[in-house]
Amino acid sequence: MPDARTPDRRGLSRRRLLTGGAAALGAAGVGAVATSASRSDAASIGGFGSETIPFRGAHQAGITTVPPAHVVFVAVDLAPSATVGDLRSILRLWTTDAERLTSGRPALADTEPELATAPARLTVTVGLGPEVFDRVGLGDRRPASVRQLPPFAVDRLESSWNGGDLLLQIGGDDPSAAAHATRVLLKNVRSMTSVRWQQRGFRTARGVRPDGQTMRNMMGQVDGTVNPTPGPDLDGLVWDQGRDQPWFAGGTTMVLRRIRIELDTWDELDPRGRELTIGRRQDTGAPLTGVHEHDEPDLDATRMGIPVIPANAHIARAHHQTPRERFLRRAFNYDDPPPRGLTSDVGLVFTAFQQDIDAQFLPVQRRLAEADALNEWTTPIGSAVFAILPGVKGGEYLGQSLLT
Amino acid sequence: MPDARTPDRRGLSRRRLLTGGAAALGAAGVGAVATSASRSDAASIGGFGSETIPFRGAHQAGITTVPPAHVVFVAVDLAPSATVGDLRSILRLWTTDAERLTSGRPALADTEPELATAPARLTVTVGLGPEVFDRVGLGDRRPASVRQLPPFAVDRLESSWNGGDLLLQIGGDDPSAAAHATRVLLKNVRSMTSVRWQQRGFRTARGVRPDGQTMRNMMGQVDGTVNPTPGPDLDGLVWDQGRDQPWFAGGTTMVLRRIRIELDTWDELDPRGRELTIGRRQDTGAPLTGVHEHDEPDLDATRMGIPVIPANAHIARAHHQTPRERFLRRAFNYDDPPPRGLTSDVGLVFTAFQQDIDAQFLPVQRRLAEADALNEWTTPIGSAVFAILPGVKGGEYLGQSLLT
Repeated sequence: MPDARTPDRRGLSRRRLLTGGAAALGAAGVGAVATSASRSDAASIGGFGSETIPFRGAHQAGITTVPPAHVVFVAVDLAPSATVGDLRSILRLWTTDAERLTSGRPALADTEPELATAPARLTVTVGLGPEVFDRVGLGDRRPASVRQLPPFAVDRLESSWNGGDLLLQIGGDDPSAAAHATRVLLKNVRSMTSVRWQQRGFRTARGVRPDGQTMRNMMGQVDGTVNPTPGPDLDGLVWDQGRDQPWFAGGTTMVLRRIRIELDTWDELDPRGRELTIGRRQDTGAPLTGVHEHDEPDLDATRMGIPVIPANAHIARAHHQTPRERFLRRAFNYDDPPPRGLTSDVGLVFTAFQQDIDAQFLPVQRRLAEADALNEWTTPIGSAVFAILPGVKGGEYLGQSLLT
Repeated sequence: MPDARTPDRRGLSRRRLLTGGAAALGAAGVGAVATSASRSDAASIGGFGSETIPFRGAHQAGITTVPPAHVVFVAVDLAPSATVGDLRSILRLWTTDAERLTSGRPALADTEPELATAPARLTVTVGLGPEVFDRVGLGDRRPASVRQLPPFAVDRLESSWNGGDLLLQIGGDDPSAAAHATRVLLKNVRSMTSVRWQQRGFRTARGVRPDGQTMRNMMGQVDGTVNPTPGPDLDGLVWDQGRDQPWFAGGTTMVLRRIRIELDTWDELDPRGRELTIGRRQDTGAPLTGVHEHDEPDLDATRMGIPVIPANAHIARAHHQTPRERFLRRAFNYDDPPPRGLTSDVGLVFTAFQQDIDAQFLPVQRRLAEADALNEWTTPIGSAVFAILPGVKGGEYLGQSLLT
């Protein structure tokens, strides 16, 4: 297939051109910007399409990476007859495909190589669901907290959004590149898997606002203000140390919750009611006891004897009570075509990353489920938990430490 | 609601700041870039989020406008009891809302004003379906070619994607701004309408590649190479002159087709087979008789007696046989979560704009339906036709020339 190989070779030579830039920018996590590309490459690439995020490293990309504008989450189930060998084959294929696609090279035998040349910070992140460990005879290697969450009274879970044997999280700043990557990764394993669900999320498009702003959800609120500080604080909360499961060192756990927002009733709430529900101002995102978004909320402050931030406000219930009750939040909006007769189908694909779901995520989730004022306008309709595999070093494949 | 008004006033003052820039850039169709905004605006806006496209003019925006990265198409039906007065109310509300939102100002009583401040070239385009003219007692004012298309043998239309009384086409480079605008426009008329369908489309994200490149569809092909040249040629093909329906002068007609791409079988076709099906090279988009994408195809060229571009290749069947058989093509990719068990649900939301559907679009469509080699891998699953209302001048509302 000489026609299919031609763009591939172009991708490779461009990749070489960019390697110098990648090294210089490595600390920022963004691999390369095509400033020195040849004229023909500049005409066909340009902009941020050529920016890449390294696939290999101590941890998978797409977790502490600056959140992209678009994400596709896909849960796939192993075929009933699948063996541990099939799981290994899937993870080997995904390793090869993801490494190529995230660096701007078409996958092997890519039938649409032209859609692979502008990755725009494409990342591919892979996880394993709780059941898959038993399925392939490795039940004793499951990280202890990777199991379905307990039921919560607020849940209205729909089977179409729950669980899954394997997770693909495909993120990037261009929906075309992410769609192509999703297609490639799924079709190359379709004899061994079936798609369980797909969820698409977005944030503000790249380039609309300055980088680093907290995103807003479709309720208009800033979302995700409270997160650990990148560096040792974040690393100590997120990355597994391999104490219980040596193979899992460098991995993490992911909770994915699909949370529908009841915009029709939320819209009936006046601005003051909204702010008391969240505990933050809608315009600035500042806590009601502060001025700036990142001001620490004063949960004990009162005005004429009344708490400024109500005890059941979202930020009061979500606030960690011990330093260990912290984790990395990454939420994306969804806005899907609504069922006939409804105006909107809007919400969040909320993800949380932590070393230990039981110790970090669940105490907070229990408090929220119990008495978060926001629960009247938000409904969890999907829930899944995954062990996010450790990063892959040179020559390794995803999950190698588990499967050897 | 002082909190809701605050961002509104900020929007207004920013808008005034930008007026000078808008005049200078008017010819390019993009209204304003916030280069001279105050420091606080720059911190909260920045990038291309503040770019606007004028809502008012001889024609509606969103048709000859440079295609945006994201589009939401919504068809709504009038409530069974709706009168011509209700239609007027809807169009007045949409005029007010669209003018504000496209200029970066929250809608009146906007409950999420923060989502309105970065329009990123937001456009709102409004059309009327064929049945609505009779519904409100204006059957004699329907533009003659605005009626459901005849059935084609290739059609596999699904009722969930067909028809509609009113069309909203909401485009822009930021999915958050487009989602917010969609929400506002729909909720303000929900007592008089119900949503019939919503379709979301995308192109390459703004900033990934240099502007002006033809987009690629999910088959990897460049899509939309052949379009009239902007200026008198395009204007003469697209904008109604008011000869048959004086009220319609400055309007146009829109055909919207939802076309599923059968990627699983398309992927089985080798590169040569793909190129013979389309008549163009996949990598460059050049016709098989040319070198560059925009080279005119030579449909009579042969090599050893065999046509270089087969007679049933897509571009051979789509090629106009008279200058009048031309129209403006604007296609967007869709990539939705597939039904359970399938790998992909991918295709095009294809739109065509022309003065006269019968004279311009239908001859081409008939040839394609009859014998386009591409039909084996594409399936029309939705079809709708709309009269796109004339542009609104200062003080007018959408549809005013029809309703007075």
